Amino acid sequence: MPLSSRNMPSTLNTYWGGANSSSPIFAHLGAESPLDHDFLRVGFPVDHAPFFNALVVYVEHRHYGESVPFGSMEEALKNETTRGFFNSAQAIADYAEVLLYVKERFSSPVIVYGGSYGGMLAAWFRLKYPHIAIGALASSAPVLYFDNITRPQDGYYWIVTKDFPATSGSCYRTIKDSWDVVDNIASQPGGLSILSQRFKTCSHLNSGVELKNFLVSMCASSAQYNHPPDYPLTVLCEAIDRAGSRTDIFGQIFAGVESAFGKNSSCYDVNYFHRPTETNEGWGWQVCSEMVMPIGRTVEAHMFQPAPFNLTEFTQYCKLVYGVPPRPHWITTYYGGHDIKLTLQKFASNIIFSNGRKDPYSSGGYVIYTIKEIIVFCLSFEVMPILDHLVMVFWLIYRVLEDLSDSLLAISTRSWFALDLINSFFFFFENQRESQKEKEKEKEMRGN
Amino acid sequence: MPLSSRNMPSTLNTYWGGANSSSPIFAHLGAESPLDHDFLRVGFPVDHAPFFNALVVYVEHRHYGESVPFGSMEEALKNETTRGFFNSAQAIADYAEVLLYVKERFSSPVIVYGGSYGGMLAAWFRLKYPHIAIGALASSAPVLYFDNITRPQDGYYWIVTKDFPATSGSCYRTIKDSWDVVDNIASQPGGLSILSQRFKTCSHLNSGVELKNFLVSMCASSAQYNHPPDYPLTVLCEAIDRAGSRTDIFGQIFAGVESAFGKNSSCYDVNYFHRPTETNEGWGWQVCSEMVMPIGRTVEAHMFQPAPFNLTEFTQYCKLVYGVPPRPHWITTYYGGHDIKLTLQKFASNIIFSNGRKDPYSSGGYVIYTIKEIIVFCLSFEVMPILDHLVMVFWLIYRVLEDLSDSLLAISTRSWFALDLINSFFFFFENQRESQKEKEKEKEMRGN
Repeated sequence: MPLSSRNMPSTLNTYWGGANSSSPIFAHLGAESPLDHDFLRVGFPVDHAPFFNALVVYVEHRHYGESVPFGSMEEALKNETTRGFFNSAQAIADYAEVLLYVKERFSSPVIVYGGSYGGMLAAWFRLKYPHIAIGALASSAPVLYFDNITRPQDGYYWIVTKDFPATSGSCYRTIKDSWDVVDNIASQPGGLSILSQRFKTCSHLNSGVELKNFLVSMCASSAQYNHPPDYPLTVLCEAIDRAGSRTDIFGQIFAGVESAFGKNSSCYDVNYFHRPTETNEGWGWQVCSEMVMPIGRTVEAHMFQPAPFNLTEFTQYCKLVYGVPPRPHWITTYYGGHDIKLTLQKFASNIIFSNGRKDPYSSGGYVIYTIKEIIVFCLSFEVMPILDHLVMVFWLIYRVLEDLSDSLLAISTRSWFALDLINSFFFFFENQRESQKEKEKEKEMRGN
Repeated sequence: MPLSSRNMPSTLNTYWGGANSSSPIFAHLGAESPLDHDFLRVGFPVDHAPFFNALVVYVEHRHYGESVPFGSMEEALKNETTRGFFNSAQAIADYAEVLLYVKERFSSPVIVYGGSYGGMLAAWFRLKYPHIAIGALASSAPVLYFDNITRPQDGYYWIVTKDFPATSGSCYRTIKDSWDVVDNIASQPGGLSILSQRFKTCSHLNSGVELKNFLVSMCASSAQYNHPPDYPLTVLCEAIDRAGSRTDIFGQIFAGVESAFGKNSSCYDVNYFHRPTETNEGWGWQVCSEMVMPIGRTVEAHMFQPAPFNLTEFTQYCKLVYGVPPRPHWITTYYGGHDIKLTLQKFASNIIFSNGRKDPYSSGGYVIYTIKEIIVFCLSFEVMPILDHLVMVFWLIYRVLEDLSDSLLAISTRSWFALDLINSFFFFFENQRESQKEKEKEKEMRGN
């Protein structure tokens, strides 16, 4: 996997404090998309590297973007044998080789970070390669959404189900009511034509399920990415609610579709979430081999109709498409996850798991709630943890530099600055919490 | 890899305290030989399991003994592709799967242990699978004998060179002098015939090097395995010294050969150490793929003629025999090793590295000398650490049970007994050290 050199030279000139300044290396671990996406999306390194004179390195995940083995993507995904090299263990072994190469040149402590799947890779990298990365920031990383570790199946849609009424009660009820209405129309003669017309689908609908799956994904996606500057969930619900005065339930939901996919489209592709993009194709294989997340919907996800995760059906599907059955216990066997609090407390250090509480994947990411002196901590606030990130990154890097202080020459004054900043941020958050508590008490007293 | 069921039933009936007693599971990790060898050789589990009501599990290393993949050994070693699955990472992944299976049935903490290569696997297993094994005893495990971590090349033969004079000065000098004499005779017309006759070689010697390599291996092996009840180094030197009064230098060395390989053999096989045994064949591949230990001899190993480790030649050899070049940096990339003290202190716990100081591999196994409250400790005494093992195992298990005490019901009284034992042993060893120090001081004073 080539070390991405695209952003490095400029970063190097602007920030890098040099090998002797104990400036850290921030290593962004690529995930299930081309690295180019991350340059645009991930603000963290560009925002925070200057505080630490840090060198920022982006490493791409094999099989995504420019990092294609076997000569071509077609060759690399040809059969089970070549696809067998496309897995998370091999990907983090790549990171190990690349980062050792970087460390040899710029001898400095490495801190890995990533989001979502990349966040899992960051945590796992610190666990498997503690001799290479001295800390990890695992952002929105559902490391517990495997096997039977946590609240099974429902976690993801359970939080989506909570996010919607928290944004708008009427929006939530409209969506919740819509499924039966779709079923009702779809079952009538000519019903699918009506639905196809009303939702301006690019091809004629084959079933009500086709439409419903599209709408479910739209809801889930808006909840998952409901962060600034776009706040898609807020936008979606505003559109649905606003349409309520002038149209029926289909018109309302369709107004949501328009808000999500653009108002002036000639038609809307109900296959949008399953288009054959690099991400969908690559992740499709990963999910069907080792990354088996049993995401389903039972009663707890009551905003949606039930659709329980069914391992038997999933296995049949994977065998059909990829020629192999998925390995539902592999991730917990290789990376752990059961009793994770005990394991991490007695073994490991410097891993931060951060989540926004409204992120549906946070149901698989609440690793440890309290701040542990030595191990892991997780701050979770309402939205995606942007401000939180800042605090935690500073905390992590401060910890790391402190840890290294007997072997490195000096802790740079920058890290003391970071410590001050952390303290003031904690103070700020503590104040916020206290005032929140007081408000709640007042409410209670008034209620009585 | 099948879980060995051969010894399990009897162990189960005799010792096992049951899942509710928090009795540990001792998992013996197989190494580069059939597991049957270990049943006979490794006294530890049978000796110590009763103290803890421990369940003892033996797990065989893939490609050795009965654990042959692909149907047959021939098929499994056919080419680079099938051989590619024969590596340490895959072997410890097997252990992970087997031990999770065992833990599911007998929910108890697992402690892994092993010796030599098996010791490295035990340490690496704890590092890579802390969620499965809560502690590891890595006995005589040269985890630092890779890449350029420690004293390169010479470590092994440097200790052999120290072991011999510590056993017998005259024996040491005889062997040290013998190499030139062999060279001298071998270079003369008919010299190889003389050597073949005097050493009763099974086939006619092709070179002096052939004989010397055999004798070097004999010396190294006797130093490496110089523990009770056989003490081969002591026996070898006694034979060499005793023969001194009645024969020349060849006769003396040959007396050593007889003592090592049996006095009444009709002939001696100079290929003995390279016979195509399962161990030699399997380990040969492992060494030529990932387990590249740069063992050589330069000036520090002055009991022997120089034979520096030459990576270029080694690479040529491996390409010729196995079709692939070795990966000399892979072990340190995957398992670490550089700055190991820092890494282990900041990350990891409950790993014991134990060595006898006279074990030639201890040159790659001195991980941490001092007793660390939380991490790792290494006691190293003169002989193979038999008594030491006892102490350390008790210490390890006590630590582990103590660690678990907030999650398990109770620490059994057995472990308190163990703690007492540890204390008394420490007291004993401390006393020994103190008296040793005093003796040395006295010596110094007399010298002055």
